[in-house]
Amino acid sequence: MNAIPSKAAIEAAHERIKNYIHQTPILTSASIDAEAGCSIFFKCENFQKIGAFKARGAMNAALSLSDDERVKGIATHSSGNHAQALARAAKILGVKSYIVMPSTAPDVKKKGVRAFGGEIFECEPTLQARESTLAEVIAKTNATEIHPFNNYDVIAGQATAAKELIEEIKELDFIIVPVGGGGLLSGTALAANYFSPKTSVIAGEPTGADDAYRSMQSGKIEVSQSSSIADGLLTSLGDKTFPLIKEHVKEIITVTDKEIVGAMRLIWERLKIIVEPSCAVPFAVVLKEKSKFAGKRVGIILSGGNVDLARAFKLFSDY
Amino acid sequence: MNAIPSKAAIEAAHERIKNYIHQTPILTSASIDAEAGCSIFFKCENFQKIGAFKARGAMNAALSLSDDERVKGIATHSSGNHAQALARAAKILGVKSYIVMPSTAPDVKKKGVRAFGGEIFECEPTLQARESTLAEVIAKTNATEIHPFNNYDVIAGQATAAKELIEEIKELDFIIVPVGGGGLLSGTALAANYFSPKTSVIAGEPTGADDAYRSMQSGKIEVSQSSSIADGLLTSLGDKTFPLIKEHVKEIITVTDKEIVGAMRLIWERLKIIVEPSCAVPFAVVLKEKSKFAGKRVGIILSGGNVDLARAFKLFSDY
Repeated sequence: MNAIPSKAAIEAAHERIKNYIHQTPILTSASIDAEAGCSIFFKCENFQKIGAFKARGAMNAALSLSDDERVKGIATHSSGNHAQALARAAKILGVKSYIVMPSTAPDVKKKGVRAFGGEIFECEPTLQARESTLAEVIAKTNATEIHPFNNYDVIAGQATAAKELIEEIKELDFIIVPVGGGGLLSGTALAANYFSPKTSVIAGEPTGADDAYRSMQSGKIEVSQSSSIADGLLTSLGDKTFPLIKEHVKEIITVTDKEIVGAMRLIWERLKIIVEPSCAVPFAVVLKEKSKFAGKRVGIILSGGNVDLARAFKLFSDY
Repeated sequence: MNAIPSKAAIEAAHERIKNYIHQTPILTSASIDAEAGCSIFFKCENFQKIGAFKARGAMNAALSLSDDERVKGIATHSSGNHAQALARAAKILGVKSYIVMPSTAPDVKKKGVRAFGGEIFECEPTLQARESTLAEVIAKTNATEIHPFNNYDVIAGQATAAKELIEEIKELDFIIVPVGGGGLLSGTALAANYFSPKTSVIAGEPTGADDAYRSMQSGKIEVSQSSSIADGLLTSLGDKTFPLIKEHVKEIITVTDKEIVGAMRLIWERLKIIVEPSCAVPFAVVLKEKSKFAGKRVGIILSGGNVDLARAFKLFSDY
């Protein structure tokens, strides 16, 4: 897809992927609502296939390829959830996936990719090495690159999480999602614009990687400092995601790592679910800005649950 | 209710409590199914009000009282989830609750009871002290005792979890639940008998508190050794729960504490949810007896998620 996803394109994406993804549950908690002073509806993408919303976008992009493209396989560079999401999509389609990963990527992530039959190409942990290695792999294989966020089919896929939330929970005042590269955020903003125009979309971002916040101020894409425990949110925006965010997102609110871990702990303790640090950012936003959300109906997309337990325990004891 | 709950009684209980409880989601995981060799449907009562299925039985029993009984309040002795469930039910009805708790009960449990306006009476941590203190409290207040499990209204309430599972997931070969005092187990057994008679009900029990297993062998109620990390399952059966279990439960399978913690870790890591040790017992049963469940459709009721994070982390590192 070479154009901004239309309402029909997001509906088609949802139809296309729905047999390959979970329609994830939406949880509520009286004790969390009492603490936050508003009604929060948590859309649990941590229960999604591969443990994150990334399964949606990757699946939609892979299913949107032509037959000719498909047989040559799909490729990306990623150290995170998109790598597994893409390998899974390729496995379902019965084609090859080529994943460029930094040598520093955790073993568990590599194992996850291999479990879906993905072929891994290791490189130095720099953006330059990742891009040049991916270029080589594509030159050799003729595979199609599916970018983790700067891709309209991926954005349309990510939009389906908010679409499900809007269909199930009426009259939301806000939807809050985290922002890294902006795939989930731009998809959510489009979904709200098409399916629930009275709902404002807000993003949460770590203060140590507040490039999206600064981009909104300056009007151009700023570079991320990439310094936060929210390791899924360290990337900068792309030229496809930023214009959508600028047009449709009401506000970006930043939170510290301490606030993120505090919110993460509350989600674990009260909702009884496991979320990764990046995923706790929107709830941290609500706790920080209680007056803004007081008495409102707030949807939060919990983006993913892929965190090593030992790392989580260390965060809880360190912060 | 002074008789074994009929099909109609369980349907009425469900109708009575449904506005006061969550219809909890049912989760599945391809990676868990691959590991276990069967299709498992996890009914997530860890997401229930107060974090455990106990909210169902307590609410049904409280709502089943006469107006005269109600105004005098409700009472129980409990160190665990039933205490909070009862205090919550009383708060909803606008009546008093009197909860006898051993002095050793964790502060977080006491706080939970007080948050619902429950009045706590502390006593020595022996069954005798708990019973005599409760008798005194009842003599003074004329409150009605609602026993945690040996009460047909409580049993009918607990039965509604399996009823929901059966209504949503068809053709289950097995439902597995943990057994402590037997309220959830006898309710589940009745629900399966009435609503899905081809489904066999199996219980999981810790080897260090295998009184229900021994009771099935000997034909009389045996006393629990109460030695397991699964602190919700240390009680012995009651004279109302045991006959139902003897008649309707196919089998009780025991698992070690090590097996319980292993299953608990897998649930945390793969399902991305937080469950307490007792709650992991049925999944430990499946992993232990894979050949029995191979290729089958297995429903598991995840009973609760009330575990202190620090304690859980210690269990994961100790076992």
